[in-house]
Amino acid sequence: MNHKLVCKILGYILWIEAVCLLAPLGIAIFTGGSDVIGFAATIAICAVLGAVLSFLGRGHARMQARDGFAAVGLGWIGLSAFGALPYCISGAIPHYVDAFFETVSGFTTTGATILSEIESLPRGILFWRAETQWMGGMGVLVLTLALMPKLGEGALYLMQAESPGPVVSKLVPKVGDTAKILYGIYVGLTAAETICLCLAGMPLYESLTHAFTTISTGGFSVKNASIAAYDSEIINWIIIVFMFLSGINFSLLYASLHRKFKSVIKSEELQLYTALAVGATLLICLNLYIEFGTPLGKSFSESAFQVVSIMTTTGYATADYALWPSFAQTMLILVMFVGACAGSTAGGVKCSRIVLLFKALRRELRKVIHPREVNVIRCDGRKVEESTLYSVHIFFFAYVVILLLGTLVVSWDNLGFDTAFSATLTCLSNVGPGLAAVGPVENFGMLSYVSKMVLSFAMLLGRLEIVPLLVLLFPSLWKKR
Amino acid sequence: MNHKLVCKILGYILWIEAVCLLAPLGIAIFTGGSDVIGFAATIAICAVLGAVLSFLGRGHARMQARDGFAAVGLGWIGLSAFGALPYCISGAIPHYVDAFFETVSGFTTTGATILSEIESLPRGILFWRAETQWMGGMGVLVLTLALMPKLGEGALYLMQAESPGPVVSKLVPKVGDTAKILYGIYVGLTAAETICLCLAGMPLYESLTHAFTTISTGGFSVKNASIAAYDSEIINWIIIVFMFLSGINFSLLYASLHRKFKSVIKSEELQLYTALAVGATLLICLNLYIEFGTPLGKSFSESAFQVVSIMTTTGYATADYALWPSFAQTMLILVMFVGACAGSTAGGVKCSRIVLLFKALRRELRKVIHPREVNVIRCDGRKVEESTLYSVHIFFFAYVVILLLGTLVVSWDNLGFDTAFSATLTCLSNVGPGLAAVGPVENFGMLSYVSKMVLSFAMLLGRLEIVPLLVLLFPSLWKKR
Repeated sequence: MNHKLVCKILGYILWIEAVCLLAPLGIAIFTGGSDVIGFAATIAICAVLGAVLSFLGRGHARMQARDGFAAVGLGWIGLSAFGALPYCISGAIPHYVDAFFETVSGFTTTGATILSEIESLPRGILFWRAETQWMGGMGVLVLTLALMPKLGEGALYLMQAESPGPVVSKLVPKVGDTAKILYGIYVGLTAAETICLCLAGMPLYESLTHAFTTISTGGFSVKNASIAAYDSEIINWIIIVFMFLSGINFSLLYASLHRKFKSVIKSEELQLYTALAVGATLLICLNLYIEFGTPLGKSFSESAFQVVSIMTTTGYATADYALWPSFAQTMLILVMFVGACAGSTAGGVKCSRIVLLFKALRRELRKVIHPREVNVIRCDGRKVEESTLYSVHIFFFAYVVILLLGTLVVSWDNLGFDTAFSATLTCLSNVGPGLAAVGPVENFGMLSYVSKMVLSFAMLLGRLEIVPLLVLLFPSLWKKR
Repeated sequence: MNHKLVCKILGYILWIEAVCLLAPLGIAIFTGGSDVIGFAATIAICAVLGAVLSFLGRGHARMQARDGFAAVGLGWIGLSAFGALPYCISGAIPHYVDAFFETVSGFTTTGATILSEIESLPRGILFWRAETQWMGGMGVLVLTLALMPKLGEGALYLMQAESPGPVVSKLVPKVGDTAKILYGIYVGLTAAETICLCLAGMPLYESLTHAFTTISTGGFSVKNASIAAYDSEIINWIIIVFMFLSGINFSLLYASLHRKFKSVIKSEELQLYTALAVGATLLICLNLYIEFGTPLGKSFSESAFQVVSIMTTTGYATADYALWPSFAQTMLILVMFVGACAGSTAGGVKCSRIVLLFKALRRELRKVIHPREVNVIRCDGRKVEESTLYSVHIFFFAYVVILLLGTLVVSWDNLGFDTAFSATLTCLSNVGPGLAAVGPVENFGMLSYVSKMVLSFAMLLGRLEIVPLLVLLFPSLWKKR
């Protein structure tokens, strides 16, 4: 590992965190809340430590893939460790493990919370909670890239390590410019949703914080009852639309801006994403109608909101789906596992990987019947490299292993298999709420500290797509043979 | 597909079924049960249809891999379809779907049952129920190979399609001789367990039927309360030992017979199998002690029995583990998923695949850090082919997909996520009982007929390791490009 380079990047990240903390500090001062000191102290710590790290990492060095991965893994852990301080210092969340869980849940855009009472918290704290999701959504390192173009070619490694999906494509030749375009789309969507929500009658502060946590597919709400608090069909549908948009690969959104609609519609990932969202919505709607006799209009609206919310790994709720029939819950578990598109702010395995895995399965079956047939896997008309396919398979295996081992640890709390399983899956997929004791009207507060730490780690693994954190975990991997 | 060859093999299989039905017919006549006519009629049908198929398939033809896979897939469906007739005709299980489920559960050595009252059934029916497991354990087609050596080289395809595990190794140069050796070990183990159980005080009829369903890792019992009915620690431990032996790769048992203990102990698969069984037993024992205060001796014995029973995918019960704490249940789910060794009679993903998958994951992580390192995966000192590794990855993906889609269908019965999930996993892994509503003191009788058909199919997919059945399901795969 190139220690100097990693220190330098960590220093930049802490400075960015200090700058981002200025907004909630301003709100805390403006509202005269008890949280001013928490933000001020954290800003001071981040600024000083950032300066020290930058000093240690001065000088120029060539970056390799492993340095990028290490910087990303350590960067996210550092961000969360310091981002938790305002909660602790202000007394909003007294125990550090709880505060760390809440912060990781923020930065990873999960949206799982240990809080049962949200509305009584100071406004600065609530803003910081929403802002962590907004920062985490696009990736703090992508922001670093946009601001610090001098990293050169090595910058792609940073982006690879942080961006979701099997293949990272630069939209334009320069990595820094790509990052700027992505942030442009991100800011544009956030602004558009804020305006729409305001027009639908939501107050500005709530519109902005909800836009932050929708576009990042995070799911933190400033209301105890989440989006159900507004009881407005218009607001529900505005949020459904923006959640769905945020689950689409940003490079497709970029292509739409350039009116390349043909290539957008032909995207196999987008087709699967749309088909799964529509199919799951209709099946759950039918299930609710048959089992509960819910009128079709209401069951369609609730079902659409919940499917899109969970599939895009946002995690807002308009209904307590933990009370829904088993089929509806299992369907939600399924879309939770799949997630939305690669290259979006969503978590989960991602539709593009599922497409590739099914194509690989089909090829293997054909090989049994036509052993001599040569068969290249194509996606959107382009050949997929065998090494990419292989990485996708490894990712899938690692995902399932982490899910099962996490479930095992969390089950020690004795809250039932469905609670342990769905809690781990919802954290690993960065969704937020799960089933049973961690359902949408419950929270993660009653879990043991061991479970909370394991789930925090699962959220980070899910957000960074496993590899950058896993290589940090096993020092034996770094030894040369 | 070579229709003639497939007809010929199906004909042989039906004849073998007719011969195997003679034993329960004899018992039915001897005990004067109501089941005589059921067996006689089924024997007649199988014999006549077998003759017709053999006539249609006369002549010689070269076998290809696809013919082997098709014959295996269709053979197992045919065996189950006709094997269900005695239950229906005798009235023991009136509905055909129920009888089909019970028969598939037998041949696939799953042991899931739709019966709530077992002991009152005629003795011939109970014997047939145990015998199906014994037949299915080693594989009916391996038996065909032992008896029909003229298939020549193509015979290996049949064995590949039916035998569990990623790599099929011939113990001796000829496939037919390998099959005979495997059956020799199988019969030897069955005889040894029958004698041990008799010596421990179990009546001969019950000893024999339990030996049938232990060595095949099936798990059907002639007692309503399964092995708990005997309330004997000696019987429990005899069964634990024979279940554990049946979960070991038979080629290792063969090597032990030739005193090659060094290579047996060095087997990485056996090491994982043993470590997982011992580790899971100790952790569950601790969990029961802490949560319930169960004395350590009793909790160790119960935990060891249940772990070995489920990991070897047998499915006997000495305790109602559906009442155990969440951690113990999750651990059982985990070993249910992993299963025992390849090349044994057990189901599940198999330890050898798990070993390979973890090695592949480790290699991928090393590649991030040391991109130029050339890294060949070895198992037991031998190089593993990349195509084998790839098939293992595909298998793992298909396993998880079938598990999730099966859970989705079964969840329509609205018995809870844990019931639907564990019912599908227990059937796919050929274990038998699951959790909650399909726990060890419950049965599968209350599921809908749709669920029963889906689970029957899951059992067949699990037993045949997915590919042979899946290629039958998609006719589009057979078309030439």
